[in-house]
Amino acid sequence: MGGMAERGISSDHILGFARSLLSHRVGRGSHQPHEVFQTSTLVSLVEGLYDGNVAYKAVMRHGDFGVGTFNALDGEMVAVDGKFFHLRSDGSVSPVSGHELTPFAVVTRFRPNIDHTEHATVTREQCEAVVHRLAPSDNLFYALRIDGRFGSVRTRTASKQSKPYPRLVDASASEAVVTLTDTTGTIVGFHTPDYAQGIGVAGYHLHYLSADHTVGGHVFDFTVDSPRIRIDSEGELHLSLQATDEFLAAQFAGDVSAEITRAESGPPA
Amino acid sequence: MGGMAERGISSDHILGFARSLLSHRVGRGSHQPHEVFQTSTLVSLVEGLYDGNVAYKAVMRHGDFGVGTFNALDGEMVAVDGKFFHLRSDGSVSPVSGHELTPFAVVTRFRPNIDHTEHATVTREQCEAVVHRLAPSDNLFYALRIDGRFGSVRTRTASKQSKPYPRLVDASASEAVVTLTDTTGTIVGFHTPDYAQGIGVAGYHLHYLSADHTVGGHVFDFTVDSPRIRIDSEGELHLSLQATDEFLAAQFAGDVSAEITRAESGPPA
Repeated sequence: MGGMAERGISSDHILGFARSLLSHRVGRGSHQPHEVFQTSTLVSLVEGLYDGNVAYKAVMRHGDFGVGTFNALDGEMVAVDGKFFHLRSDGSVSPVSGHELTPFAVVTRFRPNIDHTEHATVTREQCEAVVHRLAPSDNLFYALRIDGRFGSVRTRTASKQSKPYPRLVDASASEAVVTLTDTTGTIVGFHTPDYAQGIGVAGYHLHYLSADHTVGGHVFDFTVDSPRIRIDSEGELHLSLQATDEFLAAQFAGDVSAEITRAESGPPA
Repeated sequence: MGGMAERGISSDHILGFARSLLSHRVGRGSHQPHEVFQTSTLVSLVEGLYDGNVAYKAVMRHGDFGVGTFNALDGEMVAVDGKFFHLRSDGSVSPVSGHELTPFAVVTRFRPNIDHTEHATVTREQCEAVVHRLAPSDNLFYALRIDGRFGSVRTRTASKQSKPYPRLVDASASEAVVTLTDTTGTIVGFHTPDYAQGIGVAGYHLHYLSADHTVGGHVFDFTVDSPRIRIDSEGELHLSLQATDEFLAAQFAGDVSAEITRAESGPPA
């Protein structure tokens, strides 16, 4: 139990958490608490399959919090407090229409079991170290919400692609990196365990939205003052595949970890 | 669509299948058709985490067909037609008690959408080629049932381990391989896409049970006459993690594919 002692987690915390997970297992319905719902896989996005057949109204049934993209890779999705936003590469932010289609989205009903304020100015790396200490285990999925005053957020917003679609790593390479300075806002994201790389982004996948809903994007780096960090540890993953012709016929490459890292972590600051 | 033409799949078949998946998405309840339910991950089994905290009565709620093991790696589980069986290394077969605990199991409500009889004597390799041709895509999960007269089935049945538990590859290495000859029975198993290696066994994971419920085990190879092959293509994966102390504290190795193959494919015939 050395690992847990290092994390400063009491056995009561763990037992309570385990009981909490067990209690969900006997629950009814597909909308269990502490369940991550994901439509399609990251490998399909990596291979350039940017046209999904799932409308956001179907995704919205499974959560009030999350990240995603849109058909033709036309921007970034951020959902927070039950509101879904569509961020485009021209800088616009608009509510998501339930009719919009997505090739990839991850949502949950955000019910944090950890709520912590870090009284310091921290970088992304430092913030992740705090989250690592707070979360019960890197082997679980968890949803992560960080609210605060962000000195800077380095972002990108995917731009609409034309067919034939490039691979994700090539589509990402040409995207402008935008640094947002001195904004108040929220980071929304998920931690995916290493063993689920390919289904999702192993490690952290974070999107940002300013509190006034005017700017945001996929997050590379940030600095934040006294962030409030909330974590919803997730014991259930509901992966819902999309049976598009392209998905059914695709030949996925063996190890896409390097491409995922390049596409999702962005260029050096 | 070249891939699908090679498979001899009509576009009507694909459209029907896609519609079928979509209709489930708007369904209610966690017991959707074409959903694979899995408790815990294969990586945890690979690392020697053989004690789960989930009872089979909870697993049985999610399916009537599947494979798995028991705490301390004490044998193999085969579920067919709603009956769950516990196969032990001493050759015994008994019904699974709902109170028995499992560190890993995969089940579904088996509702095949493909039903085919292959009028020939085929090996495992040939049978997999038939399944590959019949199934809409290797990128989906699917449950697989093969009934017939088996000339031979090369099996192993995990034997109960003592603490400190060895890794799965070491536990498997010492197990006796039993070849069953001239039995009538059923192969129960799942196909897992390559991108989900680690969560499950990429490729086929097959268990066998004779029709009289007296012999069976984890399957390495087989030959079968005129097998009836049924496939339930699955668009949904419900992965339910087990928050045991050992799982939360575990440090999983990076790439366990080689170990999974060694542990699950067995020694050369």
